[in-house]
Amino acid sequence: MSNNIAKKNGDCLVIFSGGQDSTTCLYWAKEKFKGVHAVTFDYGQRHKIEIESAKKIANLAGVENHEIIDIAGMMKTTSPLVDFSKELSQYRNVDELPGGIEPTFIPCRNILFLTIAANRAVVKSIKDLVIGVSAIDYGGYPDCRPKFIILMEETLRHGLEMEINIHTPIIFLSKKDTVLLASKISGCMEALAHSHTCYEGKFPPCGKCHACLLRMKGFKEAGIEDPLIERANRSY
Amino acid sequence: MSNNIAKKNGDCLVIFSGGQDSTTCLYWAKEKFKGVHAVTFDYGQRHKIEIESAKKIANLAGVENHEIIDIAGMMKTTSPLVDFSKELSQYRNVDELPGGIEPTFIPCRNILFLTIAANRAVVKSIKDLVIGVSAIDYGGYPDCRPKFIILMEETLRHGLEMEINIHTPIIFLSKKDTVLLASKISGCMEALAHSHTCYEGKFPPCGKCHACLLRMKGFKEAGIEDPLIERANRSY
Repeated sequence: MSNNIAKKNGDCLVIFSGGQDSTTCLYWAKEKFKGVHAVTFDYGQRHKIEIESAKKIANLAGVENHEIIDIAGMMKTTSPLVDFSKELSQYRNVDELPGGIEPTFIPCRNILFLTIAANRAVVKSIKDLVIGVSAIDYGGYPDCRPKFIILMEETLRHGLEMEINIHTPIIFLSKKDTVLLASKISGCMEALAHSHTCYEGKFPPCGKCHACLLRMKGFKEAGIEDPLIERANRSY
Repeated sequence: MSNNIAKKNGDCLVIFSGGQDSTTCLYWAKEKFKGVHAVTFDYGQRHKIEIESAKKIANLAGVENHEIIDIAGMMKTTSPLVDFSKELSQYRNVDELPGGIEPTFIPCRNILFLTIAANRAVVKSIKDLVIGVSAIDYGGYPDCRPKFIILMEETLRHGLEMEINIHTPIIFLSKKDTVLLASKISGCMEALAHSHTCYEGKFPPCGKCHACLLRMKGFKEAGIEDPLIERANRSY
């Protein structure tokens, strides 16, 4: 990835949560496409800090248009990310993380995200979607794997009878490699200082939830200091 | 199709609009499955008469559970079904209907319906979805064709990592054949007297919109009187 890549493409639409992965993809998209649009889904997640992070970063990145779409009530789930009666799991370190599908999985979430994003793309005459799924450090979510993305792309193409491409810049990247990618893209590390990852919605991050542990592992293995932690330390 | 078909299957979930096709599918499902659940999507359509029809028929059919899901705002579109600044087309007869994709097409609508329905199915431990799409008299909607349904089914199976089946009882049936199917299912014609089809939201139906003309054609070719028209005549 070069910062001087020719911007031959048209506009794209990024599914953007304000987290580490989608922030990296947003900045990747800025290098690949002429105009970058973003959609953020408000699905009643525990903490509005995610939405605030998304707004802040979309502004920093200078996206063409950033739409926050309220999808609360669309998805029923037992995920503790949405069902506040459930306790989020805490772990001492990354080796404690369980295998299989994480209890935070929300059935059909990525399908819903891609479907609504595709609808917005159609009305904006955009044919390229970008989503920050990773099949490597993915918490067992089945809708983060290449086979799912290929099928979803085909489904959208047939259901809409038009060209739609789903770009997944980090699908084969571990958290470490995602950090290394981010470190090579202009402005991305500055934006990551404002990204939100912690399932507990804490700033400074809790450091004990599934999401925090994977983020810490990635920065540690990449040998790069997490700009979010630097920002947290500066806040004291 | 027999009325005495063994109900070997478990429960199913029907995507149910209260229209002619999905009413026929709801009654088909009653014969094929042990328990029938239904979801109706309120997408800000022009007329609430559709939702009222769905409630009335779900009640007549004795479904286990009928959920109305408000998805207004999820889909952006220029379809006159939702964009009230647009005029709906009127035609003198069925031969006047244009080819190609109808202006009433809402991009990603069926994908959204199936995605949300699949989410509800997962939380209810249901693996069978039923949707009343037809690839024959379908107004050019690309998301009514077999290839789309097969891809969507595969996408859901991979995205959820579980068995999900999409049943499409009328996908290869013309309006005429759908009427003939309905006439053979116990209780279905009585329910169709309460189904809603007219894009203008009128009762008695306008008889001039795309949907009315196709419905009239189907009943005429089947040589069966439309119970909705009989009910309208009785109302005078």
